[in-house]
Amino acid sequence: MAGVEAAPADERADAWIDLVAENPSPALIAQLQAYRQAWAARQDQIQVPPIPARLNRLREALKRWGLDGFIIGRADDHQGEYVPKAAERLKFVSGFTGSAGMAVVLLDKAAIFVDGRYTIQVKEQVDSALYIYRHLITEPVEAYIGETMRQGQKLGFDPKLFTPDQAQRFRAAASRVGVELVAVASNPIDEIWDGRPAEPISAMLPHDIQFAGQAAGEKRRALAEKLKKDGRHAAVISAPDSLCWLLNVRGADVPRTPFALGYAILHDDARVDLFVDRRKLPPRTLAHLGNEVAVAEPEAFAGALQDLGQAKAVIAIDAATASEWIHDQLAKAGAKVLAGECVCALPKAAKNVVEVEGSRRAHTRDGAAVSRYLAWLTERAPKGGLKEIDASDKLASFRHPNEFFRNLSFDSISAAGPNGAICHYHAMPETQREIPLNSLYLIDSGGQYLDGTTDITRTVAVGTPTREMKECFTRVLKGHIALATARFPKGTTGSALDALARRPLWDAGLDYDHGTGHGVGSYLSVHEGPQRISKMPNRVALEPGMIISNEPGYYKEGEFGIRIENLVTVRECADFPGMLEFETLTLAPIDLNAIEKSLLSVDEIAWLNAYHARVREVIAPQLEGADKAWLIEATRAI
Amino acid sequence: MAGVEAAPADERADAWIDLVAENPSPALIAQLQAYRQAWAARQDQIQVPPIPARLNRLREALKRWGLDGFIIGRADDHQGEYVPKAAERLKFVSGFTGSAGMAVVLLDKAAIFVDGRYTIQVKEQVDSALYIYRHLITEPVEAYIGETMRQGQKLGFDPKLFTPDQAQRFRAAASRVGVELVAVASNPIDEIWDGRPAEPISAMLPHDIQFAGQAAGEKRRALAEKLKKDGRHAAVISAPDSLCWLLNVRGADVPRTPFALGYAILHDDARVDLFVDRRKLPPRTLAHLGNEVAVAEPEAFAGALQDLGQAKAVIAIDAATASEWIHDQLAKAGAKVLAGECVCALPKAAKNVVEVEGSRRAHTRDGAAVSRYLAWLTERAPKGGLKEIDASDKLASFRHPNEFFRNLSFDSISAAGPNGAICHYHAMPETQREIPLNSLYLIDSGGQYLDGTTDITRTVAVGTPTREMKECFTRVLKGHIALATARFPKGTTGSALDALARRPLWDAGLDYDHGTGHGVGSYLSVHEGPQRISKMPNRVALEPGMIISNEPGYYKEGEFGIRIENLVTVRECADFPGMLEFETLTLAPIDLNAIEKSLLSVDEIAWLNAYHARVREVIAPQLEGADKAWLIEATRAI
Repeated sequence: MAGVEAAPADERADAWIDLVAENPSPALIAQLQAYRQAWAARQDQIQVPPIPARLNRLREALKRWGLDGFIIGRADDHQGEYVPKAAERLKFVSGFTGSAGMAVVLLDKAAIFVDGRYTIQVKEQVDSALYIYRHLITEPVEAYIGETMRQGQKLGFDPKLFTPDQAQRFRAAASRVGVELVAVASNPIDEIWDGRPAEPISAMLPHDIQFAGQAAGEKRRALAEKLKKDGRHAAVISAPDSLCWLLNVRGADVPRTPFALGYAILHDDARVDLFVDRRKLPPRTLAHLGNEVAVAEPEAFAGALQDLGQAKAVIAIDAATASEWIHDQLAKAGAKVLAGECVCALPKAAKNVVEVEGSRRAHTRDGAAVSRYLAWLTERAPKGGLKEIDASDKLASFRHPNEFFRNLSFDSISAAGPNGAICHYHAMPETQREIPLNSLYLIDSGGQYLDGTTDITRTVAVGTPTREMKECFTRVLKGHIALATARFPKGTTGSALDALARRPLWDAGLDYDHGTGHGVGSYLSVHEGPQRISKMPNRVALEPGMIISNEPGYYKEGEFGIRIENLVTVRECADFPGMLEFETLTLAPIDLNAIEKSLLSVDEIAWLNAYHARVREVIAPQLEGADKAWLIEATRAI
Repeated sequence: MAGVEAAPADERADAWIDLVAENPSPALIAQLQAYRQAWAARQDQIQVPPIPARLNRLREALKRWGLDGFIIGRADDHQGEYVPKAAERLKFVSGFTGSAGMAVVLLDKAAIFVDGRYTIQVKEQVDSALYIYRHLITEPVEAYIGETMRQGQKLGFDPKLFTPDQAQRFRAAASRVGVELVAVASNPIDEIWDGRPAEPISAMLPHDIQFAGQAAGEKRRALAEKLKKDGRHAAVISAPDSLCWLLNVRGADVPRTPFALGYAILHDDARVDLFVDRRKLPPRTLAHLGNEVAVAEPEAFAGALQDLGQAKAVIAIDAATASEWIHDQLAKAGAKVLAGECVCALPKAAKNVVEVEGSRRAHTRDGAAVSRYLAWLTERAPKGGLKEIDASDKLASFRHPNEFFRNLSFDSISAAGPNGAICHYHAMPETQREIPLNSLYLIDSGGQYLDGTTDITRTVAVGTPTREMKECFTRVLKGHIALATARFPKGTTGSALDALARRPLWDAGLDYDHGTGHGVGSYLSVHEGPQRISKMPNRVALEPGMIISNEPGYYKEGEFGIRIENLVTVRECADFPGMLEFETLTLAPIDLNAIEKSLLSVDEIAWLNAYHARVREVIAPQLEGADKAWLIEATRAI
């Protein structure tokens, strides 16, 4: 029950009952629900000391362990962004709840490191008497080590929570000042964390072939071929989305993303060793996995890695998610470890035709939900008093009834007026704004459907937007269209295309400080590599079937934020063999009231009208009454 | 005299006399010229055996040395593209004269490796009975080693002619098949090369501050500061253009580029040890170098590197041009060697205001020469019978009289009709074409002026171009204009901008298989890093003062080639602080007869007319008569 409770509160709160009994009777369900409630109530009574006391206890533990300091990261042992409760160690020692950050706790001082997104939030959440604030990138952990530590000291870190690259950077920084970096065998925070949540237990369930499009056995065999060809004996699968994709399973171990956490070793004969808590596997999942997937308890993972090492095997690991601990288990036992991109990354990213078609269908339903919401918003918002969270709750309520809907794909960003300029704004009940009149309202949201993951941003003019708002909105739209209509040769990377989306903003001296597009999974993570459209160099060529976002924006601090985001998929260009192009998947109106038409070219207007005609054609039949009337007006040709 | 003769035949053939005597009398000059002629005549009588015999002699030498094979590269010991005659070892053993390539000679077989540019040329120059042909990139040396060599064999290479990266790749490939890679202490080709040219001796002369814009002492001190800040004790300067830039000197050791070859060690106290043949240094150069630059003979370089090693110094080397030999001398003696970008690369690339102004002036004169040529060509070519080399000789004759002109900056590409589609076409007297009527003629050329290096390509319609030629020309022009007018935030790389120049071609399913822009030196190399505009990822941000080419193109094999190239310099954007933009430096008409006006936007037409107005304003006053009349017509507004 500790594990069940540690899994995120899901849209399907009773899914865990599956793990106890197949086809339970109503009486059994009621009994189990009551048991869970009672259990949760007991948990709530555990007294957790305040943060200063936690820090003191951590420091006492460090002293007992002979350490002068300890590095705390934000990730779990899969280097994830969404992590299970048991991995929220940074939050436990500091109070910081952002999605990225680090801390270094020394015996007499401590520092917390966050990036530009969180410089305000960290001050609200973390006591400056306990931690100094530093910038994660420009004043990094490495520099702090150099500035504060001295010859002969020992600095601990948990090798399961950092990659070999990170560990190497810490080690180099430590050694420059004569400090020893110590990889601890267990985490001192876990030792002092009374009532620490258990590792999550949620059902790992088969992901049906009607959604996955390719049998797990086929995937295993194709990758095994490739391993053999490349001279690798096995690959360690540490990325949760790779595990889920490879075995065609999904779970609910972390919020918003249907991950089933675990590790796997894929051998070059297509066998898989899967390391996962057996309690997560109902009989039908075992049947689905079949004979070529051997299930073992997580505790057996270390031994399996060491066995590979003793066999002097050549092992591929994922540089982005495999931990220093995995690397060490292999390398110290004698394996030749090759860190690179996860072997699943590219085949997972280039969706098969069933997945692309699934995404089209998911977007058809999702577009109807978003359109209903926009119709409601257009009516409701100008009346005043509409709060950000009420607005995003309303949107969620339109998505919930959809076929195959399982969850939101991330916490919605519902940002009124100036909050729109905060790129990763997250409305809190205490501080949320009401949407003011004559402003821009930005809503970035998505759904997890069995047949596809969606992610859409719309910016809506509430009342009358200013001339500046309209000009900026139109330039963002021009960038969006430039990318949506791009044709490009095979081999082109997303980095090469990024400037197309920025050019209309650059022309006016404007820009935005985020990537233009991220990959999106198929009922998996809403942020998925390895392709992306960004200023940052990226060597991954765009391939047919890849799904990626097209989301230029513009943010004027303290005033407004604009982002127009559709998902697109890469396909062969119909007109020119050998070239590729994008097909836009997302279907919902782009606010015509925010457009300054004189800034659009003839071709851009033609794109917008054709897009809106397609939205109307696909979405209108799903709507009725006022919603339908609104949609027809909102998608009129200009 | 051997060294003088080994330097390239220069536009200033008597410059070497400077090295013998300052202010020589006419009688002495005549005497020295006669001596050189007699010397050269004797040299011409040395009988060099044919290539099969050379290969045999090389194989005998390898056997004596206990080697089973030897790797031969195209570069000299500065990894240069233009190399001195003594370094033309690949040509000596194979006959191949391309600017890139490798060969592996085994005892019973041999292979030559060239890239896509040279697949035709290699068949004409290299005997297939002696060498098999392989692709340098897709069938590389490493693969050949794996396919042909076996356990226990030894493969030699000259560590002075390859970078540590290359050596590492050879070593890994060899070790996979149990072959030992042997770094030879001297080159076996030099042993068997009767009459091998000496190392070149040309005058290393001061580059005047009126052109360099910054005193060498200032450069040395600024870089020494940076070395200190970064914790390096010294930097090895192995790139010839870095050496010339750092010390404000120029020479004539290689064709087309005013390199003075040598090595330097820059210490963190701003002292420099310069390793160069003292015979290259007239007294005024010694005076110019001053007390902080200690001149030593090239033979002392190894010892100096070992001294750094024994001092356990931290040494920066240039990963692109420092040889495996340099790396080994340092590392084996105990230095900590950090291979990266040459410390001079960025400050050299970002020209100071004097250099940029010099470039503007050089382009003003160069543009007049090119305009005179285009006027002549427009009159002459349609009459028929004009050969490619006669055309480029004519262009050279217009450049020669220009103030500060010293040399062409590369061998001109003068390509008639279908030859234009061969990107690196080099007309040969035996095979050159006549420019046909109703075709496109492509001329890519440049000059070395004391105040700047130029590089310009124009494509000219001779007679009436086809509709397809005009459409393609216009799309190339649209790409050129898109890049020329780009405004972009600081921090933007050339890779990010590349797609802007390709988009108009991509839209029609077309592309070109080369970069869009390369850096250009200031009276230095016409190809200069580290910035470039290319599909290939590049992390170097564009900075004010950088000079770079803007040269999109399109090539239809067997029919025509198009390229429109201007040099541009990066500057602060006048309208938007914090943004950058390009200033076009090159001034010569773009052929209006090749343009399909209906494909140009209003903004593009405005750019073209404004550019031509500027060309007319700056160039017309330098022309007279028919030339001037032609220019006014050629730069008319459309």
